[in-house]
Amino acid sequence: MEKKKPESEIHPVEGEKGFSGKKDDIQSPAVDQALSDLRQKIDAIDAQIVSLLADRQHVVGHVAALKKLHNLQVYHPAREEDLVFIRRQQAAKIGLNPDFIEEIYRTIIRRSRVLQTSSMALKSVRAGGIVLLVGGKGGMGRYFQECFCRAGYQVRILDKDNWPDAGQLCDGIDLAVVSVPIDVSCEVIRNIAPFMPVKAVLCDITSIKEKPLEEMLKVHVGPVIGLHPLFGPTTSCLDKQIIVATPGRNDDACQWVLDQFVTWGAVVVQSDAVEHDDIMGIVQALRHFATFAFGQFLRRRRISLSRTLEFSSPIYRLELGMVGRLFAQDSSLYSEIIFASEQRRNLLKDYIMSLHDNLEMLENENKCLFEEEFQKIAEWFGPFGEQAMRESTFLIDKLIERF
Amino acid sequence: MEKKKPESEIHPVEGEKGFSGKKDDIQSPAVDQALSDLRQKIDAIDAQIVSLLADRQHVVGHVAALKKLHNLQVYHPAREEDLVFIRRQQAAKIGLNPDFIEEIYRTIIRRSRVLQTSSMALKSVRAGGIVLLVGGKGGMGRYFQECFCRAGYQVRILDKDNWPDAGQLCDGIDLAVVSVPIDVSCEVIRNIAPFMPVKAVLCDITSIKEKPLEEMLKVHVGPVIGLHPLFGPTTSCLDKQIIVATPGRNDDACQWVLDQFVTWGAVVVQSDAVEHDDIMGIVQALRHFATFAFGQFLRRRRISLSRTLEFSSPIYRLELGMVGRLFAQDSSLYSEIIFASEQRRNLLKDYIMSLHDNLEMLENENKCLFEEEFQKIAEWFGPFGEQAMRESTFLIDKLIERF
Repeated sequence: MEKKKPESEIHPVEGEKGFSGKKDDIQSPAVDQALSDLRQKIDAIDAQIVSLLADRQHVVGHVAALKKLHNLQVYHPAREEDLVFIRRQQAAKIGLNPDFIEEIYRTIIRRSRVLQTSSMALKSVRAGGIVLLVGGKGGMGRYFQECFCRAGYQVRILDKDNWPDAGQLCDGIDLAVVSVPIDVSCEVIRNIAPFMPVKAVLCDITSIKEKPLEEMLKVHVGPVIGLHPLFGPTTSCLDKQIIVATPGRNDDACQWVLDQFVTWGAVVVQSDAVEHDDIMGIVQALRHFATFAFGQFLRRRRISLSRTLEFSSPIYRLELGMVGRLFAQDSSLYSEIIFASEQRRNLLKDYIMSLHDNLEMLENENKCLFEEEFQKIAEWFGPFGEQAMRESTFLIDKLIERF
Repeated sequence: MEKKKPESEIHPVEGEKGFSGKKDDIQSPAVDQALSDLRQKIDAIDAQIVSLLADRQHVVGHVAALKKLHNLQVYHPAREEDLVFIRRQQAAKIGLNPDFIEEIYRTIIRRSRVLQTSSMALKSVRAGGIVLLVGGKGGMGRYFQECFCRAGYQVRILDKDNWPDAGQLCDGIDLAVVSVPIDVSCEVIRNIAPFMPVKAVLCDITSIKEKPLEEMLKVHVGPVIGLHPLFGPTTSCLDKQIIVATPGRNDDACQWVLDQFVTWGAVVVQSDAVEHDDIMGIVQALRHFATFAFGQFLRRRRISLSRTLEFSSPIYRLELGMVGRLFAQDSSLYSEIIFASEQRRNLLKDYIMSLHDNLEMLENENKCLFEEEFQKIAEWFGPFGEQAMRESTFLIDKLIERF
C-alpha cells in the first residue's frame, strides 16, 4: 500500500528554521535556485537507481525459475558473500564507504532471496503427498495449511468438530502434523494413533518435546519426528527461520518433511528432546517471564511510557519495545510456555530468588560487591559481549535511521 | 577496511548441494552457462547502481557545502519524507515492493545526513569561543574535547593533575563543562566556581541532575544549565542523539551551547531536574539493574550461551544481545547509575519485591492468575504494544538480513 503523501511542499526551502530556532540568514533566490537544482540532480539519479533495481529484480526472476526447474537451492552463502565483497571493493575505489554499500546490498540480497524462496514455496519435495493437520484450525495449523497447500500437497484438517471422521481423514496420508496446545498434545497423539497408516510420518509441533515425542513413539509404530518451529503464524516468509527437529524413529522416512521446510527457506537444527526442553526453558520461559515481570512492575508504578520514550536513548527504546511486544501477543501462548513443566516453574522460582539475593547489596549501598559481581559475569560472557555490542550497535543505527 | 576475500570460488555452481543434502540433479553445462550469464547481468547492473550512488554522494557534497555556507539546517524531515514518497510511488509503478525501496532509501538518506552533519561538525556557533573541560581526561571529557576542537573552539583541560592552574585556565572562558563521576560532581562544582568569570556558562553533564544543578546555582552567579547526554563516548556521530537540558539560570546566555549540540545533529529535550531524575531512574537504573540480574542468573546456572543461540529465534538473539552488551561496558559506569541515590535504590528494591510476589503464582501453577495479570498489563501498555511489535519486527528482519 502507498503511504499518504505528507502535507508539506516538496522543497520548502523558504522560511526554513535554522538550528538556533531563529530565521536563517536571509536566503537569496540564487541560493534557493542552487539548492533546488542540486535536489533535481539527486532526484534524477534516484530515478535511475530505482529503475536499475527493477531490472535487477527481473533478472533475479529468471535465476529463480532456473533454480526451481533444476532443483538448485536458493540460499547460496558463497555467491552472496562474493557479491558483497565485489561491491565493497568497487565502493572503496570510487570513494564510497564500503560498510554503507554492504548495508544496501544486504537489503537487496535478502529481497532477492525472499523472492526466490516464495517462488520455491510452490515446490513440493513429495509429489502427490497427502498431509493431515490435526488441530488445523489454530494459528499454526492454518499457517501450515497454507504452506502445504501452496506447495501442491493435498491437505486435510482434523479438528475438534470432525473427530468422528478421523479414520477416513487418515486414509492414505503421508504425514500427520499434531498442532494443538501443550496441555492436550499427548492426549491428541493417543487419539490419532489408531487411525495412522503404518508408513505415514507422525510429527508434532509442540514447544516442549520430551513428553510428546515419548508418547508418539509409544503409540505409533511407523516413522516419528518431533518438530518445534521457532516462529509464529505471523511470519511472512520462512527465510532463515529456525525449526528444531528431535528425531524419533526411522529418520530416512522422515527426511522429506525436513527437506520441505528447507525448501521453504527454513534452517533445521537437530537436537534430542531433553536438550531441547532444557534450552527452551532458558530461551523461552525464563526470558518471557523476566519480560512479563518487568512490564508488571512498570504498570504497578504507573510509569509514563510516552515521557520515558522522549528521554530515551535508542537502546532503551529497543528494550522497552521488547517488553511492549510481549504484551501485544496472546496471553495463553505465554502461560503455556511458562507453566509447561515443573522443571520450568522451578527455574523461574530460582530466578526470583537469585534476584532477591541482591536486596542486601542495595540496602548496604555495596557498590564494590556490585562491581565485583559485574566483572565475574562479564568474564563469563567473554567474547559474546563484544559481539553483542557490535550487533546491537548495528541495530540501534537501523532504529535511528527508521524512526 | 576491506573485508578478507572469502576462500570460495566466485560462482561455484558445480557440486552445489541441494536442500536434501544430496547432490543436485546432474547439472548440464547449459544450465551452468545460463546461470552464469544471468549472474553476469546482475553484476553489471550492480556495478551501475554503485556508480550512481557515488554520483549521488558527490551531489550531496555540494548540498552540504551550500547549507554550511548559508547556515541552513541539515535535517529536513519534509524533504526526506517527500523523497521516500516519490521513490515508493516509482517502485509501485514498475513492479517493485515499495517497502523494499523505502528500506534502501532510509539507508541512503541516513548516510547522506551523516555526511552533511560531519561537515557541519566543523562549524562553530560562537566564533573564537573558549571552552574549559573540567575532568577532561575521562571518556566523555575526551569526546567533547574532540567535538569542540574540530568545531574551532579553543579547548582547555582541567583535571586532577593541574588544579593549581585552575585560575589561569578559567581566564576568559565562555563555557565550563563539568564532566566527572557522579559522586564527586558537587565537590568539583564547588571547587571550580570561585575561578569562573561571571558571564561564563557553567554546565555539568552528570547523569543525575537535581543535586549538581542546585549546587551550580548556589556557587556560580552567572548562566547555569544542566546537561545529560544520552550517548556514550563511542558514539561516532551525534545525528539524532538525545541530550537532556535542565535550565538553571539565564537561558538566553546558555542558548548557544544547545545550538552547538543541535548543529552537531543532536536533539535537545527540555526537562526540569526532578522529572529528569525520576524518569532516568526507570530508563537507566531499573533497566540496567534488570539486565544485570538476568546476566547474573545465566552465569549462576552456567547456561551454554552458544548452544542457546543455535536454538534461538531472532528475538531471543536480540534480547540476549542486550544483556551481553551491558557486560561489554564499564562496571563503574553502571554502579554509579544504579547506586546514584536512595530514591533509586528504593525503586530497585521495590522491583525485586514485585518480582517476588510471583513466587506463589508459580508454586500454585496458577495459570489463570498469570493470564489475568497479563491482560491488565497489556491493556495498560495500550497502543504502545502494537507499535513495539512493528518496530521490533522491522529490526528482527534487519537482524536476519545481516547475521
